[in-house]
Amino acid sequence: MTPEHGTRRRILASARDLIYSRSYTGVGVAEICTRAEVKKGSFYHFFPSKRQLSLAVIDDLQNAIEDRGLSPAFAPDIPPLQRLQRFIEHLHAFQCAAAKTHGHLLGCPFGNLALELATSDELIRRKLAAVFAAIQARFEHVLTEAQTAGEFGVLDVPATAKAMLAYIEGVLLLAKTANDAALIRQLGPAVAQIRILPADC
Amino acid sequence: MTPEHGTRRRILASARDLIYSRSYTGVGVAEICTRAEVKKGSFYHFFPSKRQLSLAVIDDLQNAIEDRGLSPAFAPDIPPLQRLQRFIEHLHAFQCAAAKTHGHLLGCPFGNLALELATSDELIRRKLAAVFAAIQARFEHVLTEAQTAGEFGVLDVPATAKAMLAYIEGVLLLAKTANDAALIRQLGPAVAQIRILPADC
Repeated sequence: MTPEHGTRRRILASARDLIYSRSYTGVGVAEICTRAEVKKGSFYHFFPSKRQLSLAVIDDLQNAIEDRGLSPAFAPDIPPLQRLQRFIEHLHAFQCAAAKTHGHLLGCPFGNLALELATSDELIRRKLAAVFAAIQARFEHVLTEAQTAGEFGVLDVPATAKAMLAYIEGVLLLAKTANDAALIRQLGPAVAQIRILPADC
Repeated sequence: MTPEHGTRRRILASARDLIYSRSYTGVGVAEICTRAEVKKGSFYHFFPSKRQLSLAVIDDLQNAIEDRGLSPAFAPDIPPLQRLQRFIEHLHAFQCAAAKTHGHLLGCPFGNLALELATSDELIRRKLAAVFAAIQARFEHVLTEAQTAGEFGVLDVPATAKAMLAYIEGVLLLAKTANDAALIRQLGPAVAQIRILPADC
């Protein structure tokens, strides 16, 4: 890793932690620079604007969550519908770990940013919609496999996958509001019940 | 209405519109005063802090949503489970109207504030948790009535009501991110499928 690459990583990690544990608007460039121990000039060398930084933060979070959460949870070593339950367990463990570090449940970083910024930044809104589409694709894959295995009949797979993602986002929203990770274990498993039938059924 | 009362109402309405259509942190007291056509001194006469204002905004939104959304949707003139579907239709109409006014779907005002502020303001977090508990009570009432009418057997009514609320919040989150009210009609009706059984079942 070059020193330049290290500086960029430090800025990104500081921004990610601060924004995820608070909000996008609630965190300033000066505070990110102080935490990353870099000068403002250096910040703007890597990120021409806070918006560019936030797009990089979203990429960084998506990569981390793909590698450490989605890929292990949705690995094909167990039957498809069991992977949904393993994903709930991953979410629970991840939120507990964040609560231990930050003293508060942090919820879904993409849901947080979406509700804060969707009305005021079209570029960020589209980026977050793409992140949700990628997570939805994981659910679609599980549903298609389960359907092929004969686990259920006719189903609107993309709509059911979207509804499952909606439910997970809502559970994380209520868990963050209650500051109580136990809600994820109490409510999460019901995600497997949701079915959306094709419109002509 | 006294002139004093009118000034307070104007500040509150301006703050509610600005915060709901953007975010809490993204709106300053100066902007609220300009929109309400009041001086800063007058603002602080009514609201000692932006936090006090935000608590009043939450009360104001809750009253409006109780009167214009929850009460008509959950009125007992139709069978209990049909009220859930009427609530989805109310949400759809409300979000469409907001999108027409603001050019963007605004989502749930309480979900928005919860994800933005739950980690940084404990008083606001608790207030929003109480708002969610009041909405959850509407679902509980519907479920208890449906259960009494023999519509389903054993059920953890409070947990199922919370899961239904989670689903609705998640659907509104994805609809806001997609800026597409049609998602509410596509995904919303599945709320009635969710069941959480008692832990010992």
